[in-house]
Amino acid sequence: MVEKDPKYHIEGVLAGDRKILSKTITLIESALPRHKQMTDEIMGSLLPHSGNSIRLGVSGVPGVGKSTFIESLGLSLLENEHRVAILAVDPSSAKSGGSILGDKTRMEKLSADPRAYIRPSPAGKTLGGVARKTRETILVCEAAGFDVVMVETVGVGQSEYSVASMVDFFLVLMLSGAGDELQGIKRGILEIADALAVNKADGDNIKRAEKAKQVYENALHFMISPDASWHPPVLTCSALTMSGLDDLWETVLRHNRIMKKNGRFERKRKQQAKDWFLYLLDEGIKEWFYQLPKVKKLLPEIQKQVETGNATAMMGAWRLLELLEQSESGRTRSN
Amino acid sequence: MVEKDPKYHIEGVLAGDRKILSKTITLIESALPRHKQMTDEIMGSLLPHSGNSIRLGVSGVPGVGKSTFIESLGLSLLENEHRVAILAVDPSSAKSGGSILGDKTRMEKLSADPRAYIRPSPAGKTLGGVARKTRETILVCEAAGFDVVMVETVGVGQSEYSVASMVDFFLVLMLSGAGDELQGIKRGILEIADALAVNKADGDNIKRAEKAKQVYENALHFMISPDASWHPPVLTCSALTMSGLDDLWETVLRHNRIMKKNGRFERKRKQQAKDWFLYLLDEGIKEWFYQLPKVKKLLPEIQKQVETGNATAMMGAWRLLELLEQSESGRTRSN
Repeated sequence: MVEKDPKYHIEGVLAGDRKILSKTITLIESALPRHKQMTDEIMGSLLPHSGNSIRLGVSGVPGVGKSTFIESLGLSLLENEHRVAILAVDPSSAKSGGSILGDKTRMEKLSADPRAYIRPSPAGKTLGGVARKTRETILVCEAAGFDVVMVETVGVGQSEYSVASMVDFFLVLMLSGAGDELQGIKRGILEIADALAVNKADGDNIKRAEKAKQVYENALHFMISPDASWHPPVLTCSALTMSGLDDLWETVLRHNRIMKKNGRFERKRKQQAKDWFLYLLDEGIKEWFYQLPKVKKLLPEIQKQVETGNATAMMGAWRLLELLEQSESGRTRSN
Repeated sequence: MVEKDPKYHIEGVLAGDRKILSKTITLIESALPRHKQMTDEIMGSLLPHSGNSIRLGVSGVPGVGKSTFIESLGLSLLENEHRVAILAVDPSSAKSGGSILGDKTRMEKLSADPRAYIRPSPAGKTLGGVARKTRETILVCEAAGFDVVMVETVGVGQSEYSVASMVDFFLVLMLSGAGDELQGIKRGILEIADALAVNKADGDNIKRAEKAKQVYENALHFMISPDASWHPPVLTCSALTMSGLDDLWETVLRHNRIMKKNGRFERKRKQQAKDWFLYLLDEGIKEWFYQLPKVKKLLPEIQKQVETGNATAMMGAWRLLELLEQSESGRTRSN
């Protein structure tokens, strides 16, 4: 990529230039240290223009119909004068270097519309890496004027928790089945969902979807709601027939109104920013430590001793932490 | 405490001398750096003699009758030629410097029996601090010949997860109520419990306990079991009438047999040791970093900028991580 100056990126993004928006996101996704300062400058200028969107996380196991759902919801939002950006957090695709949104034909209509912007999952090595870029990408998209940002994730590994911690509203798509839906419920998923939607509630499937809805409502009833002002509802919808999508969006807006009224919206975003900051910091510290040649050399041997019961966890940890005491910064340690 | 040489502690513990056992645990609980080497030497000699016990975690909200339960179960185990050590992990008491087991009168009979050993919760600052000592204490108790180690925790904060990660079997005591039991279920607790026991199943309460049992079984049915070879059962018991305690212990033994047969017992203990080692290491690295004067000076200001949206999380993290690059060890960083 030919490198431009920050001004080029800042003005282009603020003007809503999709081509420059893509270049800017690519720059942010770049792991090159020499890009850090430039992205710092760009993000610093874009930040004041970010934040003005509804951040919607959409999750669900493969086969639940996420892409079709997102396209249908996205199209109906465009009709209501919204501008929609769609991002993907997908560790599995990241591994393969591909993306769940890579196959544009899966969102033909939406990707063809200039009021929508679809960004595939970056090919980061780790979920942390993928999510890291996505958070910054949300801000850039907002600065570019998109007032709805959807973040899609597959129901795999920790990706849901990561996405839930960067959006205002976390929606989990479910499938109706033979009554054994809950056997397949991912542990903890019910606790981070702001709403469940049983998708593919069309044709012969409507009855099963209604039944599944009740089972899920029953299961949610078992959970302590982390927020007394919002009890996650269960809806049914069909991305195919577009039914239920208006209700679903109205639910998102209602959640948004309530949270803004009781101040939780602001607090949640502040908390998310703080948590992410401290997370990046902790990850960075560890990354730095585990790259130290002395540590790389000693760690495997010590870990083996701990696993085989030849050293306690604490004995092993001390031996490695002593390396810090020896380092220059270590001497400045206060205790 | 008058300091003895390692030999005194090692021989005393291996001889099962309760007074020396207590002194040794106190030494381990000491945060004094000059004790590190000595405890290292002691633990190194005791390790080969540790591990030969059933580690049982017992949790439940205040009022569930944990202490009475533990005393009743402990006494019945003594009758079966077991030697029982009871430890407490209790962050709340740690704060106050007290202990849930501090009030010995709550376990009169058991604490009077020489075949039992009761150790109150250390007054550590953090749960990590408390749990840290408890893990080592388990090993010392095993070296002293106790073949059942019970770790008690109140159903508060993260203490349950911490205890579940240091025992072979995690038991959660429940209360029967007016049918709304599950409203009060702690999030995630069903996923770490190896068994639930509805306590106080005596007198007029038996019917309610049976009803609660069914509700809990129903709730467990909703969860994906992390281990196909074990589906957490729900039992009823009464610490008062001693009913159900034999069934409960038989469940613990059955779990032990199955896990040893399929190799999960060994793997779990290895994994626990490794996880704890890496946890201590990560905590130590962070502790070291956040104690650096430069970091202490900059962190609050940068965090404020992130929270108020004047800097992205990544910008803030970079600014602090640069301090590492400047440090001597930093220069040796490979990437």
